[in-house]
Amino acid sequence: MNIGIIGIGRIGKIHLQNCLTHFRKVKVLGAMNPSQSGRDYAAQMGVPLVTEDATELTSHPDIDAILVCSATDSHAAYVEQAAKAGKALFCEKPLDLSLDRVRQTLALVSDCDVPLMLAFNQRFDPSFAEAKQRIASGDLGRIRSLRLISRDPGPPPIAYIQRSGGMLMDMTIHDFDMARHQLDSEVVEVYAQGANMVSEDIKAAGDIDFASVVLTFANGAIATIENCRETSYGYDQRMEVFGSKGMIRVENPVKTSTLLSSSTGTLGGKNLDFFMDRYAESYRLELAAFFEALASGSPMPATGYDGLKAMEIAEAAMRSIAENRPVRLG
Amino acid sequence: MNIGIIGIGRIGKIHLQNCLTHFRKVKVLGAMNPSQSGRDYAAQMGVPLVTEDATELTSHPDIDAILVCSATDSHAAYVEQAAKAGKALFCEKPLDLSLDRVRQTLALVSDCDVPLMLAFNQRFDPSFAEAKQRIASGDLGRIRSLRLISRDPGPPPIAYIQRSGGMLMDMTIHDFDMARHQLDSEVVEVYAQGANMVSEDIKAAGDIDFASVVLTFANGAIATIENCRETSYGYDQRMEVFGSKGMIRVENPVKTSTLLSSSTGTLGGKNLDFFMDRYAESYRLELAAFFEALASGSPMPATGYDGLKAMEIAEAAMRSIAENRPVRLG
Amino acid sequence: MNIGIIGIGRIGKIHLQNCLTHFRKVKVLGAMNPSQSGRDYAAQMGVPLVTEDATELTSHPDIDAILVCSATDSHAAYVEQAAKAGKALFCEKPLDLSLDRVRQTLALVSDCDVPLMLAFNQRFDPSFAEAKQRIASGDLGRIRSLRLISRDPGPPPIAYIQRSGGMLMDMTIHDFDMARHQLDSEVVEVYAQGANMVSEDIKAAGDIDFASVVLTFANGAIATIENCRETSYGYDQRMEVFGSKGMIRVENPVKTSTLLSSSTGTLGGKNLDFFMDRYAESYRLELAAFFEALASGSPMPATGYDGLKAMEIAEAAMRSIAENRPVRLG
Amino acid sequence: MNIGIIGIGRIGKIHLQNCLTHFRKVKVLGAMNPSQSGRDYAAQMGVPLVTEDATELTSHPDIDAILVCSATDSHAAYVEQAAKAGKALFCEKPLDLSLDRVRQTLALVSDCDVPLMLAFNQRFDPSFAEAKQRIASGDLGRIRSLRLISRDPGPPPIAYIQRSGGMLMDMTIHDFDMARHQLDSEVVEVYAQGANMVSEDIKAAGDIDFASVVLTFANGAIATIENCRETSYGYDQRMEVFGSKGMIRVENPVKTSTLLSSSTGTLGGKNLDFFMDRYAESYRLELAAFFEALASGSPMPATGYDGLKAMEIAEAAMRSIAENRPVRLG
Repeated sequence: MNIGIIGIGRIGKIHLQNCLTHFRKVKVLGAMNPSQSGRDYAAQMGVPLVTEDATELTSHPDIDAILVCSATDSHAAYVEQAAKAGKALFCEKPLDLSLDRVRQTLALVSDCDVPLMLAFNQRFDPSFAEAKQRIASGDLGRIRSLRLISRDPGPPPIAYIQRSGGMLMDMTIHDFDMARHQLDSEVVEVYAQGANMVSEDIKAAGDIDFASVVLTFANGAIATIENCRETSYGYDQRMEVFGSKGMIRVENPVKTSTLLSSSTGTLGGKNLDFFMDRYAESYRLELAAFFEALASGSPMPATGYDGLKAMEIAEAAMRSIAENRPVRLG
Repeated sequence: MNIGIIGIGRIGKIHLQNCLTHFRKVKVLGAMNPSQSGRDYAAQMGVPLVTEDATELTSHPDIDAILVCSATDSHAAYVEQAAKAGKALFCEKPLDLSLDRVRQTLALVSDCDVPLMLAFNQRFDPSFAEAKQRIASGDLGRIRSLRLISRDPGPPPIAYIQRSGGMLMDMTIHDFDMARHQLDSEVVEVYAQGANMVSEDIKAAGDIDFASVVLTFANGAIATIENCRETSYGYDQRMEVFGSKGMIRVENPVKTSTLLSSSTGTLGGKNLDFFMDRYAESYRLELAAFFEALASGSPMPATGYDGLKAMEIAEAAMRSIAENRPVRLG
Repeated sequence: MNIGIIGIGRIGKIHLQNCLTHFRKVKVLGAMNPSQSGRDYAAQMGVPLVTEDATELTSHPDIDAILVCSATDSHAAYVEQAAKAGKALFCEKPLDLSLDRVRQTLALVSDCDVPLMLAFNQRFDPSFAEAKQRIASGDLGRIRSLRLISRDPGPPPIAYIQRSGGMLMDMTIHDFDMARHQLDSEVVEVYAQGANMVSEDIKAAGDIDFASVVLTFANGAIATIENCRETSYGYDQRMEVFGSKGMIRVENPVKTSTLLSSSTGTLGGKNLDFFMDRYAESYRLELAAFFEALASGSPMPATGYDGLKAMEIAEAAMRSIAENRPVRLG
Repeated sequence: MNIGIIGIGRIGKIHLQNCLTHFRKVKVLGAMNPSQSGRDYAAQMGVPLVTEDATELTSHPDIDAILVCSATDSHAAYVEQAAKAGKALFCEKPLDLSLDRVRQTLALVSDCDVPLMLAFNQRFDPSFAEAKQRIASGDLGRIRSLRLISRDPGPPPIAYIQRSGGMLMDMTIHDFDMARHQLDSEVVEVYAQGANMVSEDIKAAGDIDFASVVLTFANGAIATIENCRETSYGYDQRMEVFGSKGMIRVENPVKTSTLLSSSTGTLGGKNLDFFMDRYAESYRLELAAFFEALASGSPMPATGYDGLKAMEIAEAAMRSIAENRPVRLG
């Protein structure tokens, strides 16, 4: 299989490295990046065709699939361009910040009849995947509740917050997707509280930095999500799913597997500092899943529709905060 | 110090044993129980005055304090009787299922100017007490959120549910108290969801068996509580408090400290099956705290007012479920 | 069943309390103690016959069993006196510091045909008992190795060390018994190293304060034991048993089940400070096992022979240290 | 810095990948491999000079350092050849199976005055490195004991065992090095027991498959090592270091950070299956340490002398087993 990568930034580099070291049957034929440094990187890694023009990749006859790893506001346009050219697609999330544009692009992708995977990478983390497998197999019985905590080590730059769509749209959205994914059911009602607990600057930018959300699912399960832009102890992302036959928790991996005992107790390893360390393996596994789905012709394990549903939940949550009441979906 | 115990049932026996083996300066002068078996137990443990008439204890000139451990619907009457006789009081919770009666009894206790401790025993559990101490000392910084999970191994008899006031009043009430206690702040708004996930019989009895509650506190912290009447894995009671400087969790103690490694992973100890095992130490420590407060004349570490506030939150939560909206308190 | 207790010191008080609160079908008819304070304690707990003359207990027609909890150097004499009177016996360990005297006393007990349980209480700890059950049931397959660590929070008084028989005889002896008990096999060879790492005073008293021992068992398993008289982090007693089908570890229980996360990592609970906290439950369970064995007429779950074998291993270990070579037993 | 790699087998590939993705200032100018498949791999990864003749690398004027990753029996010859050419050296362990040859090669390297790092990769694992740092900084006080457990998931092929020098030389040797490294002291006495617990074929090949070793160090610390060729629960490598001020343990990392609670207890993640998963990060970090030492001119963090000392301990341990007695070193 031959691929082209649009966007050789932080995440594009990771996908490129993974292709080289882990997917040696996949050939990266081309890489596009608007700035020189990204193109230099690709060239040094041995990519034959390096360009600043995405059309060279989307129109390349030998390229089977395109990985869209560019800035968020260009995702939809590149996806549409590649879809029209009949290429299979792997796109970083979100497809776009506008629900209308997302719906429009998905319609076009559907018309072009090309496969599209939306990169909800956390689904592929081995721990979250194990939880999903336990739930799907019935090991936990009927699911009663799901609890997600996602707390970042520190807030992103204000510039990012101003164009991210806000915390519910850029951060909680992963949890909305994870809850839907784990429970295999749709949200029917959302109640959300937002607060400013971390930063005056975020407040001034019109966003919240803490959220507490309750989701009611069609299958009767009740999910709670807590998000915060800052912790004093590193990256904190955990999940708990409680069913009639058992409970599974996903705990935080730690930097080292050491235990230091002293008179104050026993000190275990530090949390990781960064989501890219926490999810290094999931980036590799989501790509593996994409290549497998392409090869076998089976459905993509995370779709544009999934991205759309998560955004709809985020919108309902924003309305719930604004109006201080539970909001029905659909 | 000389005490009398009204009610030698399950909990009265525990207090009696603890007095004998751990508080040897405290003399149990008398014990009242309506049925013979409780009186036999007290006699066998060497209690000098065993009776079926509570007046013999409340009017006894050598008795300094009365422990009220009788059936819930008799708490208020015995408390009033002993308060009028000028005895210090330790009373199992709740004081009464009616908020009006609770207010009335507390007014009388106040008029009589006798100390009254309400037995919120979980406050005295060493793990929860350590969390409280960390919070109060500022180790966790400004508290952002508190999360409580309480899941019982199995539902109580329907007969109990019918006269308990319902899950929010008999079970969640411990979490309402714990949240207030840990955060040292009052609840200003409640949002609750109730569901029937466990038992058709409980539904038929008009009660819920699962609850998910969000509490907003005056100090800005947001608490979530999840309760369920049943688990497949034993008694499950945990707490997590997240602040600007750190996070503390109270995990479940387990039956044994063994770890069994095999090809399926490493299996750790089972949860306890019963709250009386989980809280054995807290029963002893709450009594120690009562005796210490009496001896030193310092305020009681859990009061009738605490019981009243927890009931007010429970009432608001019931209204929130009925009306599917957040409910303001006060 | 009626019993008498000889010696109401630290351990005698625990057995007395356990009889009162947990074994209410067992009546403590009499208690003997040389000093007044122990007798006062027994009287206050409601023991009818309190005396300074052990004969009053051993000759009492209504007493079925005697618990010997007196000072070590009087164990053998009281056991012999009670055995001659036909009483069942529960004796704190060791029976005596002299192997000859132990053999002599055991011969007499055998002649008198009375049951004798030697109080190796650690066997009854639920965690160690679970390990034993796993091994005996074959869950771990063929056992390859066993590893025991026992480290005390601090050294005992020098006066104790001077008459205890030394670290291998007073401390490691528990591990020798535990290894035999878990593996259900006899030691054939011992290699031991002793060192002075903790205290100059212990060295001056002619004892070691650190030991590392390797035991070869008849069934082929190899055990290692490490002992130290001092830690900076509380009481530390752990075991690991490794077999062809799995491994089981007994870890330390901790004071609280809290986890405190901060930038330095996640801090778990402190170790206990004292073996009497660690083994509180095992004291109750060993007594339960004694009463059950008496009632059912089944063999005692820890015998005088077990005490003898552990002492023989301790003697071989002392010779190994003295001669710096492995020593064969038997 | 420009390097050449001799041997593109399992481990050579890992070093090559790490150079490409993590050490982008290091250029891999050349790669030598006797068989075609290894050369194809190197070519595909973009190595400019791919050859079956090591001299093309050792004599290449632009190559600063050589990584020797070939079969063990060729290590010494390639090291000597590159040393004579003045190249800095990184060599997989062992340098040779013969102590004489090792001494001879080290003498030549010393004469040529080139830096040589011997690849004891486990030293660079973040958990073991944290332990070392704690010990070196004095956090644990004076070290009393060190305990190492290394158990492989399954035995290597008999063909490997026949030419590996035996378990003590191919497996325990890592623990000998780790003990010396952590304690920063030399072994003065060794006592070892060997046994056949796993495989009749290994016994027939004249090797043991289980070892229990006690090491006495010049600084007074006592170390124990347990090795086994097989477990039922994955790769098991742990360490515990006990000092006067604290204790540190290195536990096994696990595949997933999930906890599954059911009536049988709480099941945590599985052990890894393979040392190359367990030590993936240490392979990268050892290479980083080599490049840093070269760049700064500081001493190599693991040397040929370290390899020699570990082999001397292994030899003494073999003698100890053969003669069933402790053996002095030096």
